[in-house]
Amino acid sequence: MSEEVKSAEELACLRHSASHILAQAVKRLYPQAKLAIGPAIENGFYYDIDLNISITPEVLISLEQEMKKIVSENLKIERFVLSRREAVELMTQRKEPYKLELIRDLPEDAELSFYKQGEFVDLCAGPHVNYTKKVKAFKLTQCTGAYWRGDSKNKMLQRIYGTAFFRQADLEAYLQFVEEAKKRDHNKLGRELELFTTSELIGQGLPILLPKGARIIQTLQRFVEDTEQQRGWQLTKTPYMAKSDLYKVSGHWDHYRDGMFVIGDPEKDDEVMALRPMTCPFQYQAYLNRNRSYRDLPLRYNETSTLFRNEDSGEMHGLIRVRQFTISEGHLMCTPEQLEAEFKSCLELTAYMLKTLGLYEDVSYRFSQWDPKNREKYIGTPEQWAEAQGAMQRILDHLQIPYTVGIGEAAFYGPKLDIQIRNVHGKEDTLITIQIDQMLAEKFGMEYVDRDGSKKNPYIIHRTSIGCYERTLALLIEKYAGAFPTWLAPVQVKILPISEKMMDYADSVYRVLSERGLRCELDDRNEKIGYKIREAQLEKVPYMLILGEKEQESGTVSVRSRKEGDRGSLTMEAFWEEIQQKIQNKTID
Amino acid sequence: MSEEVKSAEELACLRHSASHILAQAVKRLYPQAKLAIGPAIENGFYYDIDLNISITPEVLISLEQEMKKIVSENLKIERFVLSRREAVELMTQRKEPYKLELIRDLPEDAELSFYKQGEFVDLCAGPHVNYTKKVKAFKLTQCTGAYWRGDSKNKMLQRIYGTAFFRQADLEAYLQFVEEAKKRDHNKLGRELELFTTSELIGQGLPILLPKGARIIQTLQRFVEDTEQQRGWQLTKTPYMAKSDLYKVSGHWDHYRDGMFVIGDPEKDDEVMALRPMTCPFQYQAYLNRNRSYRDLPLRYNETSTLFRNEDSGEMHGLIRVRQFTISEGHLMCTPEQLEAEFKSCLELTAYMLKTLGLYEDVSYRFSQWDPKNREKYIGTPEQWAEAQGAMQRILDHLQIPYTVGIGEAAFYGPKLDIQIRNVHGKEDTLITIQIDQMLAEKFGMEYVDRDGSKKNPYIIHRTSIGCYERTLALLIEKYAGAFPTWLAPVQVKILPISEKMMDYADSVYRVLSERGLRCELDDRNEKIGYKIREAQLEKVPYMLILGEKEQESGTVSVRSRKEGDRGSLTMEAFWEEIQQKIQNKTID
Repeated sequence: MSEEVKSAEELACLRHSASHILAQAVKRLYPQAKLAIGPAIENGFYYDIDLNISITPEVLISLEQEMKKIVSENLKIERFVLSRREAVELMTQRKEPYKLELIRDLPEDAELSFYKQGEFVDLCAGPHVNYTKKVKAFKLTQCTGAYWRGDSKNKMLQRIYGTAFFRQADLEAYLQFVEEAKKRDHNKLGRELELFTTSELIGQGLPILLPKGARIIQTLQRFVEDTEQQRGWQLTKTPYMAKSDLYKVSGHWDHYRDGMFVIGDPEKDDEVMALRPMTCPFQYQAYLNRNRSYRDLPLRYNETSTLFRNEDSGEMHGLIRVRQFTISEGHLMCTPEQLEAEFKSCLELTAYMLKTLGLYEDVSYRFSQWDPKNREKYIGTPEQWAEAQGAMQRILDHLQIPYTVGIGEAAFYGPKLDIQIRNVHGKEDTLITIQIDQMLAEKFGMEYVDRDGSKKNPYIIHRTSIGCYERTLALLIEKYAGAFPTWLAPVQVKILPISEKMMDYADSVYRVLSERGLRCELDDRNEKIGYKIREAQLEKVPYMLILGEKEQESGTVSVRSRKEGDRGSLTMEAFWEEIQQKIQNKTID
Repeated sequence: MSEEVKSAEELACLRHSASHILAQAVKRLYPQAKLAIGPAIENGFYYDIDLNISITPEVLISLEQEMKKIVSENLKIERFVLSRREAVELMTQRKEPYKLELIRDLPEDAELSFYKQGEFVDLCAGPHVNYTKKVKAFKLTQCTGAYWRGDSKNKMLQRIYGTAFFRQADLEAYLQFVEEAKKRDHNKLGRELELFTTSELIGQGLPILLPKGARIIQTLQRFVEDTEQQRGWQLTKTPYMAKSDLYKVSGHWDHYRDGMFVIGDPEKDDEVMALRPMTCPFQYQAYLNRNRSYRDLPLRYNETSTLFRNEDSGEMHGLIRVRQFTISEGHLMCTPEQLEAEFKSCLELTAYMLKTLGLYEDVSYRFSQWDPKNREKYIGTPEQWAEAQGAMQRILDHLQIPYTVGIGEAAFYGPKLDIQIRNVHGKEDTLITIQIDQMLAEKFGMEYVDRDGSKKNPYIIHRTSIGCYERTLALLIEKYAGAFPTWLAPVQVKILPISEKMMDYADSVYRVLSERGLRCELDDRNEKIGYKIREAQLEKVPYMLILGEKEQESGTVSVRSRKEGDRGSLTMEAFWEEIQQKIQNKTID
């Protein structure tokens, strides 16, 4: 998009002006409306309005009309400054209680600037474009509820969202992008494709993986477990709950209790348990099962681990914001000398997996550090943090990993390398994290006998290789718009007999391919072949085998590929060879 | 054992007499001892004694000596009857307060019989052998604590266990069997082989599967999931917790709440959740995801499902009595016409799996029915129970399954076929259950549109194919004394270079076999070959490959099999062919 030639500041300024034009339109059509705040945001702007009528899609259209009028009036946008007394007087006159509250909360010495365009005036720090005509390409997108100042104790206002660009073409490209992202939205598409569902009775943030979704996760899980086994990781299977005693040692009881599901009342019950929000101290118990020597290190434990986090129901969303999830977890105990090479292997493993899934191009790296100003969030001394962060920095620099720094984003026990991913909606989120921890081994009494006979605490690398399976599935749904690579597709081959006469042949093809481990479905309904093909296309099945008289006589299959369309007749063995290669190589098709 | 020619009653009578001889010995050595009760039990007898000194193994030996003396005295054992007054008088005289309590609690019209041998008299219903000399082959085995009348509010007594047989050879065979069972005890052997461990910090009943145990469970899980997929089961992955609402509909909230881990306080909190003790209502939500027709049935959902049960800590044991376990769960929705065939398939699947694991010969069948006298334990009407139990009975009779009947052993919603297994200690336990349920579909509003357009509730078969993975692992440890069949062995091949000079060759063998998916370990320590072989034997690894100069030169491997010992040199390909066949066929070796 050519917007990139304009700076982000210029675009934000344009959008901020668009929000003023929106507010002006609201006041023209609904003079009783009270204005709250109206900033520019990442992909556009919004304005929060207190209005006694509901802002329906029809209202949005009439507001857009009025905004166009204001733009065509080409009003000059002018800044002026008032004293506090004058400012209060003006906003009292204009009956804007929210603005009065904002003025009241500004520091005594703040400059109170206003912007004016025609009859409209707003308390605003600016900057703005100089004429309303500059705002040519805009669109109101939706209206939602929003509490005044984001506090649920305050009144619920109406928040009108919109976006604006310098050029119409850019606006249209953006709207198309949003439309496409909506179609790919895993929370919509994943349900349509019957990958997952939710249930009121079970509760929010607890998705149910239906057979097609469960099959994809099974395939991913085997891929991860097998790859990790080959690279020297040893699988554990540890319990999903523990007594509070464990979390007291790890520090989670003090630093993370609000995020945990606790069973029992610490004030009443003898035994209080909690569901685990992480795997660390559980895998440490495996390490502690016997005495260790330097010869046992590096010791790499992996686990397909289910975790539980007690998030607010309001924050739940599809497969991404959930209360229970399963993660490709791992903890690696090593000596200081092994740290860099092992950290590098963890990174390489992750890169290999993301490349295999086709997600590698969408990631970036963030070096998450502690915030020395917020000491109570962390355990350990400044010296320990300097050492662990120093080690990670040296490793990242040595590996020439480009990264940004996130202050205050570290785990409470150590720094993290976060692998960030941008989803189809443009939103960035942490997919994978690799952490260096030199504190928990000591807390848990994990030691090894070194060459010289002395006892030492190992370094621990906390890491995941592929992240949470649910989140990864969500990203894959959106990345491929549901048309998964053949090796991952829940149904790989759909067998479509043209009529009842080919049913025996279709059944034999189905049996042979299923026995070889292909995930096949036989559409034996008495429907027209065109209808069956269209349905299979909607289900985004990679291959259809269409079986008519010709195929039956020659013992062949007519192949229709999701990607290449009609491929003509092949022997079943030739088809098997092709699809089998694709699955084995995990080809992205 | 030739005991079988004697009836079980005769053996119990002998053991009961042995318990009297024990009590007589106690009274001779410790006249202050008070006698409680002393019955015959499944594998022997015990006597509960109130004694102010601790019964140590040394005391047991002296008691055995005294018992031998009593046997050689060949006292006549005689029965006599007293009136209640006389009985109370006798026991008061002999200072036996527990016997007095027993007399007091007997019904008014009960006959009060006593048995006498020499100076010893005991209140007893009999029968007994007629002379002490009949008790030739006996042994005291241990002493534990036991509350008077099994009530923890009462005094803790000392319970002396022993056993007795008609012939010395039978006693010795039995003691050897017990010794062997102890060696195989999964709770001992499983820890020694580093299959699992437990942790004080995590809590009781929450075993940690170490890499070797986790690898076996992974292998079993893949076997089950793949076999079930081939047989038309569709995998789901449903959440491990739900709002109480779900359990209220299913009836678990009323009928099973004590066994559940509840999160939150029903009296204080808006949202109360509970960990699931079963998978049923979760898989039903998958069924409810869309409208179903008779064409969708039978619909078979399977899941590798983790469940949680809030058992008393006192009942926890190894991998068998646990608070969290993972089960090969499944629910099958079908029409009444499909019920018998589908029930049969479930049984066949289970038989196939048990045969593959080598456990089939150890099972028996129990038809668990409701108890009409205990109505509050169950939902549904007597008519519904008659229908469901009638259906199961017809199916079992038709399939000619031999079974015993367990009244009051049904699930609260329907009858069960329990597949019982006897472990190495001779203890019977339920491994697998297949249930018929015609009640829960209605409760959850699960329907299908039948051929005639009418809406009906499907029958539901609840079943597991292999049971709980943890319990199955425990049975396998004991069955094979840790020497698992090659396909299940956590380490299949151990590569043992004779000296440092063969390390490169050993490493190449290790790499080739590992890349082909064999679970190999390379023992590259600088130790004598004899030592390495002994260690590998203790770990019960199926194959060792011993690599010396000869093997290195000829590119062969010297194979030592756990079962057949030294097998001489083979080419690596010949060895690969052999082990690969064994794994593929899941041979029990």
